[in-house]
Amino acid sequence: MPRYRLTVAYEGTAFHGWQKQHPPDAEPLRTVQGVLEETVRQVVREPIAVLGASRTDAGVHAWGQVAAFTTTRALPPRGLVRGLNARLPDDVLVRGAVVVDEAFNPISDAVRKAYRYRIAHGGAGGVLRPLFDRRTVTFAPSPLDPVSMNIAAQHLVGTHDFTSFTRLHHGRESTVRTVDACTVLATGPDRLRIDVSGNGFLYNMVRIIAGTLMQVGRGHWTPDVIPAVLAAADRVAAGPTLPPEGLRLEWIEYPPDTGTACPPS
Amino acid sequence: MPRYRLTVAYEGTAFHGWQKQHPPDAEPLRTVQGVLEETVRQVVREPIAVLGASRTDAGVHAWGQVAAFTTTRALPPRGLVRGLNARLPDDVLVRGAVVVDEAFNPISDAVRKAYRYRIAHGGAGGVLRPLFDRRTVTFAPSPLDPVSMNIAAQHLVGTHDFTSFTRLHHGRESTVRTVDACTVLATGPDRLRIDVSGNGFLYNMVRIIAGTLMQVGRGHWTPDVIPAVLAAADRVAAGPTLPPEGLRLEWIEYPPDTGTACPPS
Repeated sequence: MPRYRLTVAYEGTAFHGWQKQHPPDAEPLRTVQGVLEETVRQVVREPIAVLGASRTDAGVHAWGQVAAFTTTRALPPRGLVRGLNARLPDDVLVRGAVVVDEAFNPISDAVRKAYRYRIAHGGAGGVLRPLFDRRTVTFAPSPLDPVSMNIAAQHLVGTHDFTSFTRLHHGRESTVRTVDACTVLATGPDRLRIDVSGNGFLYNMVRIIAGTLMQVGRGHWTPDVIPAVLAAADRVAAGPTLPPEGLRLEWIEYPPDTGTACPPS
Repeated sequence: MPRYRLTVAYEGTAFHGWQKQHPPDAEPLRTVQGVLEETVRQVVREPIAVLGASRTDAGVHAWGQVAAFTTTRALPPRGLVRGLNARLPDDVLVRGAVVVDEAFNPISDAVRKAYRYRIAHGGAGGVLRPLFDRRTVTFAPSPLDPVSMNIAAQHLVGTHDFTSFTRLHHGRESTVRTVDACTVLATGPDRLRIDVSGNGFLYNMVRIIAGTLMQVGRGHWTPDVIPAVLAAADRVAAGPTLPPEGLRLEWIEYPPDTGTACPPS
């Protein structure tokens, strides 16, 4: 049976996150997984389950979320993309589809992920809240210095215990992760973005990294405080968790042999 | 009594245009003028009337709309901007305020206006509808050639009778306008923008210019058809009126002596 891998983009504003949620005695919440699964079912005309690589939180956006499903119907990937986009609401877009191995698992096969966090701040232009991009940037009224933030960010690169950068962690799972790159770039007099990529991310990790770098950008902390924040292995040592609207899942990397261009026969 | 000139930005998506509308036997419609007037009244604590330079249509956006009002209260312009932005909904933003002459009229004192029209088209990247910028670009599924569109646009520059570029015109008012500049620029493989500035614009003129240039960009018409379209002085000679979401009022120019930096005493 053909298995498809979809690259999915969405504006998270009007979603209760990726994962399906059906509270007892209430209507199911509007989630990306719920909407996508329902639309795929309409197109393939059979019940299927969609598995996503990353369970993004309510309000978080994605440009390169990855999802997979298996169906008995053999559809050419381009026709599948067209059929899905014609039926999906305007805040979700399927950017591409490929046929993958039946054993493909978007969660465990992921090699690397990248996130971007955007901030509008009280920079050179004065303090005006964002307008046209307000759904995808976080507003921080004080001016931020992207240069010191970028110096601080370099201390996060490498393999570290990121316990300070996650919500209180009770599992037996490891909190060690490898960050490949973390850069802070000014994109205008009052706009900056933080790009982070790595082999995996703990819960709220990027939003706490952004909040910690914000403390540096405001001048409250110096860039060289980061090694001590990591060493503390304690959530209270890091900065605040910034809100979801500035965060976007950019891309997820898989081994090159997990996708094939051959349409199903 | 101090008169204030405001520079106002808004996302037009959720507005029934600029101008106040109160249909008989119904609630007033949500308009930018209505929302702004109500907010200014809360801040100055007296009834005032806000006059706007341009009556933008439902769904049209603005970055540099200009509005004016007169009040008995003398407020420092920066405090006025802060007070208004704290109370305005998140789809309207006051970008600045200056004190102007009591006789200032934002409509008749305007010297020049500029509009931008954005299109997402089926360019090199394939045909995917816009997602994050879908409220501010118009989607045209066929590929468009910005180079031939820009050549066509040059024929619009100058002083012409723009009767072909407006809705059926019954008034005695002149349909002659001067376009100072009209340029088409590719901003990505599947994005382009049209920038038009001039001394005044007829009803729907920019949206019809965009629709006419789109016919050229698709290859349906050649760039040198434009002089004949102008000469026809007939709406049917031009292309379609493109939808409002791609249009944004960018700026309005006034004589330099209409604004003073002096706060009211």
